[in-house]
Amino acid sequence: MRIVVDANVPAARECFAPLGEVIAVPGREIDAAAVREADALVVRSITRVDEALVAGSRLRFVGTCTIGTDHVDRAALAARDIGFASAPGCNAEAVVDYVLASLATLAERQGFGLTERRVGIVGVGNVGGRLRARLEALGIECLACDPPRVEAESIEAEGGAGFHELDALIDACDVLCLHTPLVREGPHATRHLLDARRIAELAPGTILLNAGRGDCLDGQALRSRLSGQDDITAVLDVWEREPAIDAALCDLAEIATPHIAGHSRDGKLRGTHAVYQALAHRFGLPVRLTMEDLSPPPPLPSLTLDEGLSVDEALRLCMRAVYDVRRDHDALHRERRRQGMAAGFDDCRARYPLRREFSTLTVALRPAAEALAGPLSAAGFRVAVGSEG
Amino acid sequence: MRIVVDANVPAARECFAPLGEVIAVPGREIDAAAVREADALVVRSITRVDEALVAGSRLRFVGTCTIGTDHVDRAALAARDIGFASAPGCNAEAVVDYVLASLATLAERQGFGLTERRVGIVGVGNVGGRLRARLEALGIECLACDPPRVEAESIEAEGGAGFHELDALIDACDVLCLHTPLVREGPHATRHLLDARRIAELAPGTILLNAGRGDCLDGQALRSRLSGQDDITAVLDVWEREPAIDAALCDLAEIATPHIAGHSRDGKLRGTHAVYQALAHRFGLPVRLTMEDLSPPPPLPSLTLDEGLSVDEALRLCMRAVYDVRRDHDALHRERRRQGMAAGFDDCRARYPLRREFSTLTVALRPAAEALAGPLSAAGFRVAVGSEG
Ligand SMILES: NC(=O)c1ccc[n+]([C@@H]2O[C@H](COP(=O)([O-])OP(=O)(O)OC[C@H]3O[C@@H](n4cnc5c(N)ncnc54)[C@H](O)[C@@H]3O)[C@@H](O)[C@H]2O)c1
Ligand SMILES: NC(=O)c1ccc[n+]([C@@H]2O[C@H](COP(=O)([O-])OP(=O)(O)OC[C@H]3O[C@@H](n4cnc5c(N)ncnc54)[C@H](O)[C@@H]3O)[C@@H](O)[C@H]2O)c1
Repeated sequence: MRIVVDANVPAARECFAPLGEVIAVPGREIDAAAVREADALVVRSITRVDEALVAGSRLRFVGTCTIGTDHVDRAALAARDIGFASAPGCNAEAVVDYVLASLATLAERQGFGLTERRVGIVGVGNVGGRLRARLEALGIECLACDPPRVEAESIEAEGGAGFHELDALIDACDVLCLHTPLVREGPHATRHLLDARRIAELAPGTILLNAGRGDCLDGQALRSRLSGQDDITAVLDVWEREPAIDAALCDLAEIATPHIAGHSRDGKLRGTHAVYQALAHRFGLPVRLTMEDLSPPPPLPSLTLDEGLSVDEALRLCMRAVYDVRRDHDALHRERRRQGMAAGFDDCRARYPLRREFSTLTVALRPAAEALAGPLSAAGFRVAVGSEG
Repeated sequence: MRIVVDANVPAARECFAPLGEVIAVPGREIDAAAVREADALVVRSITRVDEALVAGSRLRFVGTCTIGTDHVDRAALAARDIGFASAPGCNAEAVVDYVLASLATLAERQGFGLTERRVGIVGVGNVGGRLRARLEALGIECLACDPPRVEAESIEAEGGAGFHELDALIDACDVLCLHTPLVREGPHATRHLLDARRIAELAPGTILLNAGRGDCLDGQALRSRLSGQDDITAVLDVWEREPAIDAALCDLAEIATPHIAGHSRDGKLRGTHAVYQALAHRFGLPVRLTMEDLSPPPPLPSLTLDEGLSVDEALRLCMRAVYDVRRDHDALHRERRRQGMAAGFDDCRARYPLRREFSTLTVALRPAAEALAGPLSAAGFRVAVGSEG
């Protein structure tokens, strides 16, 4: 079997060489000629997969190691009985790490305890669902909003399974986290879901975090609110008109990052692994490699804690040792000054030092620090209790 | 023997009870009556020690667990043959930690490598000398300025033993660190040592750090330079007119902290231990306790590093896990907004969460990360190589 793979897919050779002959091609150069003799194709979002690409081939499988599938004409594949897989949720844990790291930083800066805040999650899919699980495990109260799920799963609307209307979240929550995709039309459209009215209604002190899609939020309205009153806090990873984002809004955001919330090494490998499994399945081949086989050792495998830290301090220490979101905020501001807004934004993404996820760190707890075990594992770390570290 | 001890001296009972009867008295309440029957007195800077205090006593020793001795009339003690000791340098390592943590943070923010900068150290005493040692061990070039030492030690002036004139440092250095005491008069007076002229002459890009005394620098001139050009970076731990410091300058400083550079738990214990040794010596008693006996376990005893980090990244990770200077910067700004400048400044100091020093952290290096051993131990960490962590 011949497998054409985007040369930038991490761990591609490791995964696919046991299944067939791997031909690595730069994503932009994957064209009809390149796939003519291929049985399987593995891409990232840079390659447009359509009828023109696959028509002359004997492809039986196309996989994209991304959560998005906008670059793939799935109907064209289905019509030719070409199997397809993407990697939904592969970077969801990374986004949750980003949200927790941001909240922990704001908690320190503004002087509040994490469990003193109620969090509203808008869009409870792969990201939002995992965020809710980790926050609730940490003892942080969550309210969820996801009308499409309420509809699809016939959940009783207001309050059913903890689901609420968006305006109820705005009324009741101290922190609002947007994890919705961009839906331009229909009853659940998300474009400017947070519109000028809702942004005006946010109570003073609210933390507004968007790591879904930039267009889900009216950036101009947010900019006016922040420059006029400065009584809410914005954490923005996604923006309207990336990479030429609103520089004034970028200045006003307490944490501003260039669409990197999901950029972990582990997430990228999870994307490859998901496609590897689907491809093997399609061709009836055995799946022998686990995620552990693919993951390089993290630069910080473990640390030991003894007594003396509060829960929030311990969480902050461990989170920041793995990922300090202020690094990315500082880099965006620096490169923007050096290169201008759009070029700086793109450059930060292009040269992004892929992070590891919280789950790669083992926290060994001395007996006197055992009480930290619950919160640390709730936050996503591996915990070893009673170790002599 | 009776030992009267300021009730706020840490580990006082542990140290002094083996030597005599310990009577703990709040520092402000230590008066002539309190010391009348005492053989030894141990104070902090809050107690004024003068002829009036000691006249009616049988004191043979007074110790202050501080580096400063302005609160002690040493002549009055000498006249009565009362032994005296202070704790010079006890918090010097903590200040060096502060300087390294600040430089590492700016290096990340501004995107430079630590060894790419030349550091000028003004005042090469307990703090400055240790700073020079750690920076040079890290491979960072240093120029030193300390005319009183040049004079006292008959060092050849310009360039001798690496000593230079202040203006030569200003010309040649990217970073200028002030660690001078306040000297109001004489040939080596330090009041406004960095005056308007010198501040104007600082090259664009210069980092100016003051952790000596606020009055060594003309704050108004620095404020004008920062608000006018914003082409240099200020790190300020000490200020004119503390705690009612210049709020505008506080806003303009890239790192602003409330005179806490020396506030480590280890430094405080070192102060007690120094006085304990001197007291035992004065009375011909054995010194049985070491600093290790006094030091509680740190909340972060160890962490393990594997390959994957640059030297600067590894240094930053380890430094911040022990001490993140941005915590103190953020707290000052928060409390200033809440309570006003002077009250906020005082409150941050009063409630300061004493840090541990870098030397309390053991960094275990996996074989692939062995190259980090040199820099990490140069920075002050304990390093264990080849550990399985
Ligand atoms: N910032 C980043 O780096 C990053 C990383 C991963 C994902 N994302 C983005 O985050 C979004 C969510 O990702 P995901 O993997 O969880 O997607 P997902 O499809 O698993 O979940 C999205 C959820 O949003 C819900 N939703 C849709 N319309 C809604 C509306 N009007 N109101 C409330 N909820 C609504 C859907 O029902 C679904 O449950 C996507 O847009 C994705 O592109 C960003
Ligand atoms: N920010 C803090 O928390 C903190 C902590 C510790 C010390 N300090 C302050 O830092 C300063 C230094 O502390 P130290 O323990 O190193 O004191 P030290 O007395 O050991 O060293 C001071 C050095 O400055 C030199 N000096 C004096 N006048 C000078 C001049 N005009 N130009 C250049 N050098 C000159 C002296 O010769 C001496 O070598 C003191 O003022 C101390 O109060 C601040």
